[in-house]
Amino acid sequence: MEGITNEACSLAGHWGLGKLIALYDDNHMSCDGGTDLIFTESVEKRFEALGWHVVFVRDGNTGFDEIRAAIQEAKAVKDKPTLIKVRTTTGYGAPNKANTTSVHGKVLGSAEVEATRKNLGWDYEPFQYPEDVKQHWSRHISKGASLEAEWNIKFAEYEKKYEDEATEFKSIITGELPPYWEKSLPTFPPESPAMATRNTSQQCLNALAKVLPGLIGGSADLSSSNMSLPETFSNFQKTTPQGRNICFGVREHAMAAICNGIAFHSPGLIPYCATYLAFIDYMRGAMRTSAMSKAGVIYVMTHDSIAVGEDGPTHQPIEHLSSFRSMPNILTIRPADGTETAGAYKLAILNRRRPTILALSRQSVPQIKGTSVEGVERGGYIVSDNSEGNKPEVILIGTGSELRIAVKAADDLRKIGKMERVVSLVCWEVFEEQSEEYKESVLPVAVSARVSVEAGVTFGWERYVGVKGKAIGIDRFGASAPAVRLYEEFGVTVKAVIEAAMAIC
Amino acid sequence: MEGITNEACSLAGHWGLGKLIALYDDNHMSCDGGTDLIFTESVEKRFEALGWHVVFVRDGNTGFDEIRAAIQEAKAVKDKPTLIKVRTTTGYGAPNKANTTSVHGKVLGSAEVEATRKNLGWDYEPFQYPEDVKQHWSRHISKGASLEAEWNIKFAEYEKKYEDEATEFKSIITGELPPYWEKSLPTFPPESPAMATRNTSQQCLNALAKVLPGLIGGSADLSSSNMSLPETFSNFQKTTPQGRNICFGVREHAMAAICNGIAFHSPGLIPYCATYLAFIDYMRGAMRTSAMSKAGVIYVMTHDSIAVGEDGPTHQPIEHLSSFRSMPNILTIRPADGTETAGAYKLAILNRRRPTILALSRQSVPQIKGTSVEGVERGGYIVSDNSEGNKPEVILIGTGSELRIAVKAADDLRKIGKMERVVSLVCWEVFEEQSEEYKESVLPVAVSARVSVEAGVTFGWERYVGVKGKAIGIDRFGASAPAVRLYEEFGVTVKAVIEAAMAIC
Repeated sequence: MEGITNEACSLAGHWGLGKLIALYDDNHMSCDGGTDLIFTESVEKRFEALGWHVVFVRDGNTGFDEIRAAIQEAKAVKDKPTLIKVRTTTGYGAPNKANTTSVHGKVLGSAEVEATRKNLGWDYEPFQYPEDVKQHWSRHISKGASLEAEWNIKFAEYEKKYEDEATEFKSIITGELPPYWEKSLPTFPPESPAMATRNTSQQCLNALAKVLPGLIGGSADLSSSNMSLPETFSNFQKTTPQGRNICFGVREHAMAAICNGIAFHSPGLIPYCATYLAFIDYMRGAMRTSAMSKAGVIYVMTHDSIAVGEDGPTHQPIEHLSSFRSMPNILTIRPADGTETAGAYKLAILNRRRPTILALSRQSVPQIKGTSVEGVERGGYIVSDNSEGNKPEVILIGTGSELRIAVKAADDLRKIGKMERVVSLVCWEVFEEQSEEYKESVLPVAVSARVSVEAGVTFGWERYVGVKGKAIGIDRFGASAPAVRLYEEFGVTVKAVIEAAMAIC
Repeated sequence: MEGITNEACSLAGHWGLGKLIALYDDNHMSCDGGTDLIFTESVEKRFEALGWHVVFVRDGNTGFDEIRAAIQEAKAVKDKPTLIKVRTTTGYGAPNKANTTSVHGKVLGSAEVEATRKNLGWDYEPFQYPEDVKQHWSRHISKGASLEAEWNIKFAEYEKKYEDEATEFKSIITGELPPYWEKSLPTFPPESPAMATRNTSQQCLNALAKVLPGLIGGSADLSSSNMSLPETFSNFQKTTPQGRNICFGVREHAMAAICNGIAFHSPGLIPYCATYLAFIDYMRGAMRTSAMSKAGVIYVMTHDSIAVGEDGPTHQPIEHLSSFRSMPNILTIRPADGTETAGAYKLAILNRRRPTILALSRQSVPQIKGTSVEGVERGGYIVSDNSEGNKPEVILIGTGSELRIAVKAADDLRKIGKMERVVSLVCWEVFEEQSEEYKESVLPVAVSARVSVEAGVTFGWERYVGVKGKAIGIDRFGASAPAVRLYEEFGVTVKAVIEAAMAIC
């Protein structure tokens, strides 16, 4: 019933995934009663429409030969995935509770367990298994060992003949990154031209695509907006499975779930996927799975603020950064320029056991003096400071495309003699993990005059600006207008930062 | 392609919504190229599988008679929704850009606009419309007026004959609530038995179902867990459209979207929907639409903490409260007991222009002395206090099932002579809207010794506990164990609150 299954199964049919066999337990029961209450579509016809081969097993309770035959049939179909619809009775064998909703979500209870044992003629103790069952299944141990030995010999031969390919293959299996991979990341000196971080992101992807054989990903039908298609990649399709660009279509939820699957398949596969940041909500369920299951998926989320302009509030992220900073075990990185984008990719690639969100701008941003890859690796750091002894009069904190606002405000305040520090808080989660000494060196407890600026909700910023400080942001939904006008209307400006700083120091 | 469409269309087919006619613009183009890249399923067969009638219009560009005939055919089919698949050319008439991806997401540009006008023989100025077009469409003005007059006469007759029914009908059209509706809400004196707030919620729904004719809703296949089925409601089904309980199946995203549709239909319809709080992410996209579009949907979200126990981290909300407190224009209410549950429903029913999330417990909670409906209506309030002059030594703040932890800790601290205040911060958004005087009377700025306790992430609590205070919560995913054990392991306990309070006052 869940929509994500239709998204994923539509793609499986499109790609003709002939190795995929899904057994569908058709027991006609749901939590609230029989499925006739809520689910009367023809599953067979829907899957045929999606390009699947469909087999029906009439007796999934005891029809073992029928199930075996269905699997054989499915294996023989090489150009389509197969759905085996297996008609079963939920709680089969339980004399009083079989085929009831109570079996679906509740325990049988000791009386019904006893009655079921009796009914099925099962005389063994709990957790005891019969010797013949053990023997039957143990046959796989020796069979598996000999298959593995065969494979090892074959691979040793392959390695002799194709040294480079074998090294690449092993790196994908082990997850060990090639040496000096991070040297490939582009650099963006302060004098280089202004550029959107979605474009600096593209340069990073182009570079990494060449050195990381396990990098694979794509976009939910926005690759030319997300700038997420590396120049060396071709499309992954039925007839071109070697392609590393996956066209997901407008299916965000399945996209994230598929990336989880790729991450779990092998530690050296590094999946990324892309859409607009405002659409991230559509895949949040699968992203929670990334975080909980430690899948190092990289989420390339562009158009990360009201600066998308005329498309209006539906397309303008407001609460999204905050909503993911709330989630455990996921990094939310919002780079301010090219250098920080390179740093963000370095962090993301190194974090193979937790997912990363890259929040990237649609609009051009200048390369800022003082940003650094090393700074990004610490989550937050000092971009500029004209004070001494770790005692600035005010600390201005920015992220992403608003860091330049903090920088400009500091420049102006310094002209009138103020001692200002600018901090880039590019990744809160990583900053929190730094030593107390380091955090104190960036945000000294004694300096309570702090102003933050970010084009999103101020929720959560109290952690860094404290009771006396001021968070400049947008605590309502956006609007449709040119980006410059919106920043003015919502008060996310150099002037607002200067006024807030003057008011508290 | 989006999964939500399959969820919604599966329900439309199941319910046999014969009045529903969907025109599907089949232009074979997406942002990243032709749809053959990503979408090769048979849409016709899929919709037939979902129980729809399907009509195909071959020429959607100029085949006006074909389109009219298709709509007539669709209207004649009364027992099924109809999909009219209309084959069109995107950017039809633009000589150089028709049938290209550039038309999909970009403006034509003045040169191509000019060429298109020429190509289509359109000689009028921009925004000018021909007189014959105006006349053709203006025929609806007089037709509509006479239809309305007819209806008004018919309704006046109805009103004379069926006074009560007419009153009910008008209340749904106007959104005016019946007088004294809130008197129906159940009361829960402190001496009444402990009860889960999902159960006190059920008592509220039972009461409101009797007095609010526009109340309509249901659950995503969890009604017996969410306790969301009012005793007077029968199921809404194809043959029983008068039923007010909607069985949504396991389709959270469509459920929320359908509730938005119901809210938009008429101001007197009050839609609610239910699932576990941990599953709220599946429908977050549609909930953002509720918030942005001012649809007063009530989200009944039960099993709101690690107290769900053995089901484990996938079913245990951790970041969810925080992630919705980030979202503009939506109320997140987490009642502590029966009285606060009644207050929460009162707030939710009165908020017809913004949605409400009710976060409700699976486990029993005691009825707490000092909770009140009026308190809930202010978002946060003092539950108990043994200090004087608005100067407690420590303020203990709790929400939902953890308020009792704050209450117990305060009792213990008072026994050793401490001056303690307990605050219930049941709805942050509404508390923020109170006057500065009121907020100061609850959380005086001068009292910086504050401890909060909530079984979720501490992210955002800095707003209320400040720099010197301490937020007790859970900043990691949950685990599978009995609820009592989990509270101990994660340190959400009376002992932890007392220790934190002693450390800062």
